[in-house]
Amino acid sequence: MYIASTTAPVNIATLKYWGKRDKTLNLPTNSSISVTLSQEDLRTLTSAATSETFSEDQLWLNGKLESLASERTQMCLADLRQLRAELESQDDSLPKFSQWKLHIVSENNFPTAAGLASSAAGFSALVVAIAKLYKLPQSMSEISKIARKGSGSACRSLFGGYVAWEMGVEEDGSDSKAVEVAPLEHWDNMKAVILVVSADKKDTPSTSGMQTTVHTSDLFQWRIKEVVPTRFEEMKKSIVEKNFPVFADLTMKDSNSFHATCLDSFPPIFYLNDTSKKIIKLVHAINEFYKETIAAYTFDAGPNAVIYYESQNESKLFAFLYKLFGKVSGWESKYTTESLTAFTTEFETIKEQLNFAIDEELYKGVSRVILTQAGPGPQDTDLCLISEATGLPK
Amino acid sequence: MYIASTTAPVNIATLKYWGKRDKTLNLPTNSSISVTLSQEDLRTLTSAATSETFSEDQLWLNGKLESLASERTQMCLADLRQLRAELESQDDSLPKFSQWKLHIVSENNFPTAAGLASSAAGFSALVVAIAKLYKLPQSMSEISKIARKGSGSACRSLFGGYVAWEMGVEEDGSDSKAVEVAPLEHWDNMKAVILVVSADKKDTPSTSGMQTTVHTSDLFQWRIKEVVPTRFEEMKKSIVEKNFPVFADLTMKDSNSFHATCLDSFPPIFYLNDTSKKIIKLVHAINEFYKETIAAYTFDAGPNAVIYYESQNESKLFAFLYKLFGKVSGWESKYTTESLTAFTTEFETIKEQLNFAIDEELYKGVSRVILTQAGPGPQDTDLCLISEATGLPK
Repeated sequence: MYIASTTAPVNIATLKYWGKRDKTLNLPTNSSISVTLSQEDLRTLTSAATSETFSEDQLWLNGKLESLASERTQMCLADLRQLRAELESQDDSLPKFSQWKLHIVSENNFPTAAGLASSAAGFSALVVAIAKLYKLPQSMSEISKIARKGSGSACRSLFGGYVAWEMGVEEDGSDSKAVEVAPLEHWDNMKAVILVVSADKKDTPSTSGMQTTVHTSDLFQWRIKEVVPTRFEEMKKSIVEKNFPVFADLTMKDSNSFHATCLDSFPPIFYLNDTSKKIIKLVHAINEFYKETIAAYTFDAGPNAVIYYESQNESKLFAFLYKLFGKVSGWESKYTTESLTAFTTEFETIKEQLNFAIDEELYKGVSRVILTQAGPGPQDTDLCLISEATGLPK
Repeated sequence: MYIASTTAPVNIATLKYWGKRDKTLNLPTNSSISVTLSQEDLRTLTSAATSETFSEDQLWLNGKLESLASERTQMCLADLRQLRAELESQDDSLPKFSQWKLHIVSENNFPTAAGLASSAAGFSALVVAIAKLYKLPQSMSEISKIARKGSGSACRSLFGGYVAWEMGVEEDGSDSKAVEVAPLEHWDNMKAVILVVSADKKDTPSTSGMQTTVHTSDLFQWRIKEVVPTRFEEMKKSIVEKNFPVFADLTMKDSNSFHATCLDSFPPIFYLNDTSKKIIKLVHAINEFYKETIAAYTFDAGPNAVIYYESQNESKLFAFLYKLFGKVSGWESKYTTESLTAFTTEFETIKEQLNFAIDEELYKGVSRVILTQAGPGPQDTDLCLISEATGLPK
């Protein structure tokens, strides 16, 4: 039996992926950009094992046996076996992994219930673990094309730091892949607060939502043809130059543009709720208060807010966020009581100068605060979720 | 002393006016279309008097003395006096109204607090009353250009039924005017329910909101250049053909498109709240339930929903709306207990077939229901708000 394990991160787009030009291959209608988040807070750990003795491909996800039958997963496995088969055909001494069955065991270090897109980390970890098991020589960008077939945004989780998914032009998707815009070390003081917003009920699933937008929104056509291509270049430049105010404005504008095309779909799709909107207004009010753009919100296909900021502005930002969301869980795991008291003190020193009202009830719409930062790509790990004795989950 | 009085209606756009290409002259970035609503439910009554003895222009609005100093009002008065002066220059026997001061008294038959744009009816009534007092020979379209300078959408209140505001191309606004698409009689079974939605706080005023959108939204440029011009022709055609399903789809799409460009503004502008969104979803669910588009929502720069429908579908629609909003005031003034019971009975007969959940709490976000219909343009009236003895409000 052969086993390999990896961890893989979550990424949160700052230039949004919304719309597929090919649904089967997950080819997007526009390029996108994301920041990879730290795996200390949000990551998937996946172990993949193969053995001549295994009778079928099996997947255990967070302790439960799950189906591997989905077309998406099958495409990933087929592509990985194909690359392995090419290796085997060049070197007879290699064991015939490409013909053996796989056992895959995967665990997230965060609750799925948080409503955070876990499919990106999940497919990224699955593909990387098997690529490692198969000792595939391909680059991460090459491997990202396989992860993309599993879940579009998963391709961006193959790199740390600042990542672009180039949409490509080829019909077979051979040039639709993730590339590094800048490594984590280039801009390592990027942090993020995730405000997990309580949702009434399930949102429109992103795959069907995208299809509705592509087929019905008039404004969407302009977004993908004119707005995003320009913004893509501007955002890459802002990352290379570490220009936070520009990066922040582009990030907020692109989140709004994406949600605008959802609203322009027919029937319209709503992901932002009243709490989300109040958070948007709050971030604008904070930036105006400091006369400097220190925070940028972005919202995926749901009401949760991700707020990016640079570490040197943390106390300025948290003077407000801890005041507003201090009652919500998530702060204690990251900060000492002393630090938290310092945020409160900072708020006290500025509250006289406030030119906007603090909504004391806003925290009620938020169920959890996740405090994190930019992080690296998939990591090797000594952890292993599969028993070498049985080939089953430990 | 000479006195003239008129009533003028509210109109609710089905193709939205949003964006000025000239702020002073209220020249829009796109043409728009509206339905004029019945003055039995929503109207402004205005009396205008002039006398050589008046010492200053004065305006009383809903019983309160108001300033006439705003640039917009001054432009309207100057234009009207100019047209009157032309008449006087051609006929020496005419009294010199153009040189005399005006007393204007105006009253709405609906509370301003309802958040319904009263400026359209208000400026329309003001301009028409004075035009009548001055016995101006100009057509309603010509007079609409003066009302437009007071409040853009006011120009559409100079006609009943189905009205287009043609944006025009001239810099001086001489071709930016209202025209009749079809008279009320052409499609006289058009009705409307207004759900007055409780708002947290004051929305972004529409004039400043428009400027933000024009200057910051990328998607807006596409809306005015490509989306609206096509939709304008399609909607006029749907009115001429009395094709409700097409008219309804265009109306709903254009409301969404307008709110999408608000969301795409920077900072974003939000007029729809969670209640508004639930009403949107409800209307789509009702149309899907009947497998026929019987209702169309539209939202102006605020959370209030206006739902258009044809009278023959009233019981189908009200089976749902009375079930959901029956606790809100506004039904009793229009319907007998018997009729209301019939709506409840109709709901009981279909509730087994429902494929969506009824939100029993939705009425809590709605403060009032206004039941109305398409109506005529400004009307002559025997009512007069000014005392002939004193020249002051009665």
